[in-house]
Amino acid sequence: MLIVQKFGGTSVGDLDRIQNVANRVSKCKKAGNDVVVVVSAMSGETNKLVGYAEHFSSTPSRADMDMLLSSGERVTASLLSIALNEMGHEAVAMTGRKAGIVTNMHHTKARIEVINPDAMKKEIKSGKIIVIAGFQGVNENGDVTTLGRGGSDLSAVAIAGALKADLCEIYTDVNGIYTTDPRIEPRAKKLDYISYDEMLELASLGAKVLQSRSVEMAKKLNVNLVTRSSFSDEEGTLITKEENIMEAPLVSGIALDRNQARISLVGVKDRPGIASDIFNKLATNDINIDMIIQTKAYDGSTSIDFTVPVSDIEDAKNIVDCFIKTGEIKSDSYNENICKVSVVGVGMKSHTGVAALAFSTMAKNNININMISTSEIKVSMIIDEKYAELAVRGLHASYELDK
Amino acid sequence: MLIVQKFGGTSVGDLDRIQNVANRVSKCKKAGNDVVVVVSAMSGETNKLVGYAEHFSSTPSRADMDMLLSSGERVTASLLSIALNEMGHEAVAMTGRKAGIVTNMHHTKARIEVINPDAMKKEIKSGKIIVIAGFQGVNENGDVTTLGRGGSDLSAVAIAGALKADLCEIYTDVNGIYTTDPRIEPRAKKLDYISYDEMLELASLGAKVLQSRSVEMAKKLNVNLVTRSSFSDEEGTLITKEENIMEAPLVSGIALDRNQARISLVGVKDRPGIASDIFNKLATNDINIDMIIQTKAYDGSTSIDFTVPVSDIEDAKNIVDCFIKTGEIKSDSYNENICKVSVVGVGMKSHTGVAALAFSTMAKNNININMISTSEIKVSMIIDEKYAELAVRGLHASYELDK
Repeated sequence: MLIVQKFGGTSVGDLDRIQNVANRVSKCKKAGNDVVVVVSAMSGETNKLVGYAEHFSSTPSRADMDMLLSSGERVTASLLSIALNEMGHEAVAMTGRKAGIVTNMHHTKARIEVINPDAMKKEIKSGKIIVIAGFQGVNENGDVTTLGRGGSDLSAVAIAGALKADLCEIYTDVNGIYTTDPRIEPRAKKLDYISYDEMLELASLGAKVLQSRSVEMAKKLNVNLVTRSSFSDEEGTLITKEENIMEAPLVSGIALDRNQARISLVGVKDRPGIASDIFNKLATNDINIDMIIQTKAYDGSTSIDFTVPVSDIEDAKNIVDCFIKTGEIKSDSYNENICKVSVVGVGMKSHTGVAALAFSTMAKNNININMISTSEIKVSMIIDEKYAELAVRGLHASYELDK
Repeated sequence: MLIVQKFGGTSVGDLDRIQNVANRVSKCKKAGNDVVVVVSAMSGETNKLVGYAEHFSSTPSRADMDMLLSSGERVTASLLSIALNEMGHEAVAMTGRKAGIVTNMHHTKARIEVINPDAMKKEIKSGKIIVIAGFQGVNENGDVTTLGRGGSDLSAVAIAGALKADLCEIYTDVNGIYTTDPRIEPRAKKLDYISYDEMLELASLGAKVLQSRSVEMAKKLNVNLVTRSSFSDEEGTLITKEENIMEAPLVSGIALDRNQARISLVGVKDRPGIASDIFNKLATNDINIDMIIQTKAYDGSTSIDFTVPVSDIEDAKNIVDCFIKTGEIKSDSYNENICKVSVVGVGMKSHTGVAALAFSTMAKNNININMISTSEIKVSMIIDEKYAELAVRGLHASYELDK
């Protein structure tokens, strides 16, 4: 098998941990696999460099930042290659450039445009282990770029796609994806597999493990992703396409998102296009709207409720204020003490009653549902934040996820 | 003027010192010059990385080492560029690759083969300050290489040559080149200028300031070099071609080299080619011979005396032993308690009596001269090491270098 293994900052956090990673890579190679390794900077290193830059400027040039920040991964990649060579393997360290990773021009948050895998393929063919500095590529001007948050995961997934690898293993400090946050429900179980789409819906569960960007790319490139721990031998969670999962459970997990705020607009002027005006204005200001509900009161006036990430609420308020000044909205109110619980599972595509069970679980626990939204594989509910844990545990039990 | 300024590890040793460098560069730019800056890694950084590598292997791959070690200079270059931009200048950081520095394939001690200055020229033309990561280049395979000890100085001199810069300033923590080591003779004076050839002969004085490799390259490329301190505003020493120095002093300086050992071979077989055999064998083993004296005793037997660096003496002994085994040399003896004092000055080309004054100074101080060698601009004497300081101070006074 050709396996891409990606190790994050904690996994290569000090020299002993890098040796530990070398042992793991060595084991995989000795089992007869071709191995390509992608590494992050040693944990703390990138923050240290950012701190250095901030000493000089609050607005450093993005190109300078990329040259600065890309150095951390180069150090880890070289050291791991040195360790593997010492263990008797033939290993070679590569920068993003050498690995053929070409990005667009957006310094500090570049997108991978194409990967030219020739150099990698040549080394793999000669039996070498390749160790690649993650998080970085090179733009068409030949300048180093970095890929932004979660960039090393992206490097690994993109490389796995370009090499048509059998597996892309993402090593972190957690064992995989759980049915829900184990800190809320200790009976949460690790999932053996999950589909790309479910994983994307469970983003709030998986965000600490894997960013949506990487899952989306894995889906697009059809890369079999495994998230697992570099500190244990426990099997992780396989993220793959739905067709590969023989018997999908009805529901895979319960997600909780505390990072939501509700904005209520009362007395919205009844003219065609008003909703479009409001939400276009919010969209062009990069405010991420999640749920929207529009209602008409008995007196004929219109109310619009929607949710935004808490971090966007100040910006949203400013925009709403403009409409209040022009008289097109009468008044507004805000509520940050809400949260979103979601039931996610591809099984609900072909089964009825999944949403009904969610609602009855809320009722049984005396939790009022403020807003509801559904997709093919998800039922989301906005509730008061104080009921968050109660709701998660109730749903986890109702769908028998602890079994 | 187009000025290349190079700052070593101590000059960029911490964030405050990098700011100090930025201020100095800024001043030079504001005075109306075009400025290209070359930086080393922050002091201690390269040693830290070497230590990391040694944790894993005593024989790391040289290519991996180059990827590892080249990261330190990238950090400093990015940070300095960020600082300069914040001060209102337009600055851009460049790796060795981006600056067009192409080397041969010898990882960890590559030689610069060619510099393609187009990218640099373009940025200079647009008024930008360029900050280049020293010590590194790229080979024809596109892999990062490093230039070995003193590599950042070489980068700076080669860049100054390629850009036909008016001046190449090497900033360190000393003020320039002195007539002799001020720790031995406190009356030593800083030289305002010195020729390339004198500087090469004074290598033992200047080694801590500037390596011979860089001076040789400056001579070849006709680069006006200045060594000066980044911690003071004092003018440094200009190293330039002889023709540029209007009135050269008879003698420029007194050099002391304690790192010499003397090997005496007694009863060397009297056959044609024996000396050639011995010294060829030493040369092919990279042993650096300095002085050689051959004498014939009254009994017809030949003696050969020569000096080598102390660090080569074990290797030299092994080679001499081979000749003793075959009976071509009767016996050998070694003396590490010697040193070499040299009087250096282009003025002696056209003046007589310079060597005679050196010998009479030794006689006046009751110092026995073991060996003598001379070149056009140098008189060197091997003496007992215990007389080293006495000899240096005596010569310094005789040639009136404190005046």
